[in-house]
Amino acid sequence: MSDIKRLDSGPRMSQAVVHGGTVWLAGQVGKPGESVTAQTKTILEQIESLLERSDSDKSRILQATIWLESMDDFAEMNAVWDAWVDPANPPARACGESRLATPDYKVEIIVVAAVA
Amino acid sequence: MSDIKRLDSGPRMSQAVVHGGTVWLAGQVGKPGESVTAQTKTILEQIESLLERSDSDKSRILQATIWLESMDDFAEMNAVWDAWVDPANPPARACGESRLATPDYKVEIIVVAAVA
Amino acid sequence: MSDIKRLDSGPRMSQAVVHGGTVWLAGQVGKPGESVTAQTKTILEQIESLLERSDSDKSRILQATIWLESMDDFAEMNAVWDAWVDPANPPARACGESRLATPDYKVEIIVVAAVA
Repeated sequence: MSDIKRLDSGPRMSQAVVHGGTVWLAGQVGKPGESVTAQTKTILEQIESLLERSDSDKSRILQATIWLESMDDFAEMNAVWDAWVDPANPPARACGESRLATPDYKVEIIVVAAVA
Repeated sequence: MSDIKRLDSGPRMSQAVVHGGTVWLAGQVGKPGESVTAQTKTILEQIESLLERSDSDKSRILQATIWLESMDDFAEMNAVWDAWVDPANPPARACGESRLATPDYKVEIIVVAAVA
Repeated sequence: MSDIKRLDSGPRMSQAVVHGGTVWLAGQVGKPGESVTAQTKTILEQIESLLERSDSDKSRILQATIWLESMDDFAEMNAVWDAWVDPANPPARACGESRLATPDYKVEIIVVAAVA
C-alpha cells in the first residue's frame, strides 16, 4: 500500500496528492469567461473541497501561490481572497502575473496545506 | 553530518535538495533553441535522473510546476508530458506562462517528489 | 495548541508558516522604485530575518523561486544572489519572468527552508 494518496487523478495530473503530513493541490481554475470575482470564488470553493477530502481545511494552508492573467485584477481577486481566508490562520502567499491555458482563465491558485 | 543532502551543487544553486522525505528539484530546462518537444523530453529525462539519484522516481512526484515561454506551446508540451507521466500516479500540476532566462528556452519544469 | 506556527500574520497572509520541520515564506519584495540590486538586497535580508526567527537559516533553504518583472534584470539580480547564497549549501532554484503587484516591484523571491 502506497504512502502517497491521490485524489481525482486523470491521465495528466491529480487534483490533490497527500504525503507525509502535507497535501499538494493542482493549480485550481474557475470557469473560463466568468468574472474575476466568480472565478476566484469557484477556485476557493474547490480548494476547500479538496482540502476537506484530504483531511485538511483552510486554517491549515501553508502556502498559496496566485497567478493572475492580468495584475489589473489584483484588487478584485484580493477582495474575494480577503473575505475567504481564515483571519486567525493566514498562509504564506505570493501573487504574480502569468498568462494561463487560455485568456478566458483569469486566476489560478496553487495551495500546499498540512493534513490533520 | 547534515540532515540535508544536495546534488550537483554549483555556486548559484543545487539541482536537487533532499530533506525529511522530500526532494526539491531546481527548475529544469532543455537545450536552448531546440523544439518544445525536444526541450520537454530533455527536461523529463533530467528529472528522472535526478529523482533516481535522490532515491525517488516519477511515480512519487507530488507537485510539478510548468512554465512555458508561450502558451501557444501548451499542446506540444502536453503531448510529451502525457506520454511520460506515470498514469497510475500522476502528480498535482500547474502550468503558467513565464518568459525564461533567454527566449531560446521554451519550457521549465519544477518538481517536488517524495523519496522512498 | 496548534502544530502550525505563523509569523507576522496580517488579514491577507503570514510572512512565514512553520510546520513539520519546514518553513514556508511569503513572497518577499523590496522597496518599490529602488534598483534591482537594492530590492534584491532588501529581500535577502528579510529572508534571513524570517528564517532566523523560524529556527532556520540560509544554509537550510530547500527551494527558492525567483520572479523578475523583466528578464533584462537577470544578471543584476544574480550578482546579489551569488554573493549572498551559502556556497556550501545552495538551494534548488528556479527563476521566471512575472509582472508583480505594481511595475515598481522588480523582484520577488519565495523560499521554503528546513527548520533546525
